[in-house]
Amino acid sequence: MTVEGIKVVDATLRDGGLVNDFFFDDDFVKALYKANIEAGIDYMEFGYRASKKQFDPKNFGKWKFTSDKDVWNVIGEKNPRLKLSIMVDVGRTDFREDIGPRKDSPIDLFRVATYIETIPEAIEMIDYISSLGYETTCNIMAISKCTDEQIANALYQLAQTPALAIYIVDSYGALYPKQARKLTRLYHQILAPAGKEVGMHAHNNQQCAFANTLEAKDLGAKWLDGTAFGMGRGAGNCHSEALIAYLNGKKYHVEPLLKLVEDWMLSMKENGVEWGYNTSYMLTGLTNQHPRTAIAATKKKDYQYIEQLKFLSYQ
Amino acid sequence: MTVEGIKVVDATLRDGGLVNDFFFDDDFVKALYKANIEAGIDYMEFGYRASKKQFDPKNFGKWKFTSDKDVWNVIGEKNPRLKLSIMVDVGRTDFREDIGPRKDSPIDLFRVATYIETIPEAIEMIDYISSLGYETTCNIMAISKCTDEQIANALYQLAQTPALAIYIVDSYGALYPKQARKLTRLYHQILAPAGKEVGMHAHNNQQCAFANTLEAKDLGAKWLDGTAFGMGRGAGNCHSEALIAYLNGKKYHVEPLLKLVEDWMLSMKENGVEWGYNTSYMLTGLTNQHPRTAIAATKKKDYQYIEQLKFLSYQ
Repeated sequence: MTVEGIKVVDATLRDGGLVNDFFFDDDFVKALYKANIEAGIDYMEFGYRASKKQFDPKNFGKWKFTSDKDVWNVIGEKNPRLKLSIMVDVGRTDFREDIGPRKDSPIDLFRVATYIETIPEAIEMIDYISSLGYETTCNIMAISKCTDEQIANALYQLAQTPALAIYIVDSYGALYPKQARKLTRLYHQILAPAGKEVGMHAHNNQQCAFANTLEAKDLGAKWLDGTAFGMGRGAGNCHSEALIAYLNGKKYHVEPLLKLVEDWMLSMKENGVEWGYNTSYMLTGLTNQHPRTAIAATKKKDYQYIEQLKFLSYQ
Repeated sequence: MTVEGIKVVDATLRDGGLVNDFFFDDDFVKALYKANIEAGIDYMEFGYRASKKQFDPKNFGKWKFTSDKDVWNVIGEKNPRLKLSIMVDVGRTDFREDIGPRKDSPIDLFRVATYIETIPEAIEMIDYISSLGYETTCNIMAISKCTDEQIANALYQLAQTPALAIYIVDSYGALYPKQARKLTRLYHQILAPAGKEVGMHAHNNQQCAFANTLEAKDLGAKWLDGTAFGMGRGAGNCHSEALIAYLNGKKYHVEPLLKLVEDWMLSMKENGVEWGYNTSYMLTGLTNQHPRTAIAATKKKDYQYIEQLKFLSYQ
């Protein structure tokens, strides 16, 4: 198993934050941080740095607005084995005000999340944040809704930015392995000549998150996202313990993540934080739609799947 | 989506029977039968025809020993849209005594399940059962434990039997999509010249059951197994509602299966019948082992995954 150049990114606090409004126990964050280091994970994402003008901090845990200080408070000193990232959404962050120079920050990487329609804004953010000394990636969301032409057009533009990698973000969990391969090839073809790498962020609506991540890896994607026990919006993500188990060897070690599942993730789920595959998510993935109707159905314990499919088919 | 020549086999009563000792409510069996017909499913497997000399009927529901009469009692008349199958395990069936001629039977197909070591016995069964007028397939279990040479050797022998198809049976849920493709190609290469087809029976230990089934299909596998809501041993199988949703169109219709999940499968799980992905199953899949230790751990609510992995790694 070659893991050369692979960067596993733990996105638990970020995608997982979408299912608990970013209310994580500090002890959990510390345990996750420690587990990630011991597992050999390459990056840990400390949530978002969202605009406090747009979102009321009273309604969310701190990891939606993660400040450098929040991170220092939890990690103490920086461990050189694990780089740290934060996600910023186009249009939902005051990046010019809220991001300072890298030299004072525990953060190494900002991941700029964008829809295909706002690539110019994403590029503006990438340029600005890179100029502060940070690494950047661009994460193109809802990729299953984009045409190949749109994607190619976006990638040619992004190839000229300082971003290290561009992500395939399967927000809707709509991709099958075949499509994951096709997109990885398309990305690679355009990005490799510019020295950029490809990333995969998968969702598990159709139980393909892990499979799609492996498929992307085999075709050269270097940035692979996982979350502990798959914690993430709706059906959740590629389970980082499954991914690390697969990559297990000299660099990666699954045991710390298994311990984390045992110590934290099972009880988090039992205590009512909801994520993971169910039939409602399968249907939004199948129809290539935002999981919001399935999230609502899951919350309401609505199991009328035929009605749900009908509704989705008319979208 | 081409579905030409595809045969979807519903194995709920058979693989699902392994998690409830074949105690299915007759009303459920009728509902499943009806749903399968309406969904356009091609075959429905009515459990096993196991030897009553080896297994005490007091300890199991009737679908472990399925007689023709059991089937007639549930289905009434035969519906020509759905063929019926029964599985017989090498060494665990009194096939010469317990299988009569096809003309008196509701059963169309016997699927002969075998390990790679008992291919000669499987061939004996295939020959005998075919001579009674039935369709047959050969299902090679624990395929992830076999070398390519063993597999090729078995396939060359099976290519000369009357079996319609030979199955890749990923009993341990150990296959990744890449391996599912490799095996499908190997099978196809040897079997196609003999006019035999390839089947895929997947398990979900590493959440690859659906993905592996799609991969096999894309490379020409025609026999695709699913079970309602994935009900099956350990981590369960490819969900037939997900598979049929994917194939949905003129021939296949997902709605009846969605209704079945809503009406029956959710409550079956809630009432304590256990199946489906968890971390223990991921570890047996990862280490390419029989799920028995994970089944035991799941029953005991043992979440000491590091210990489980240690144990599996020494096997």
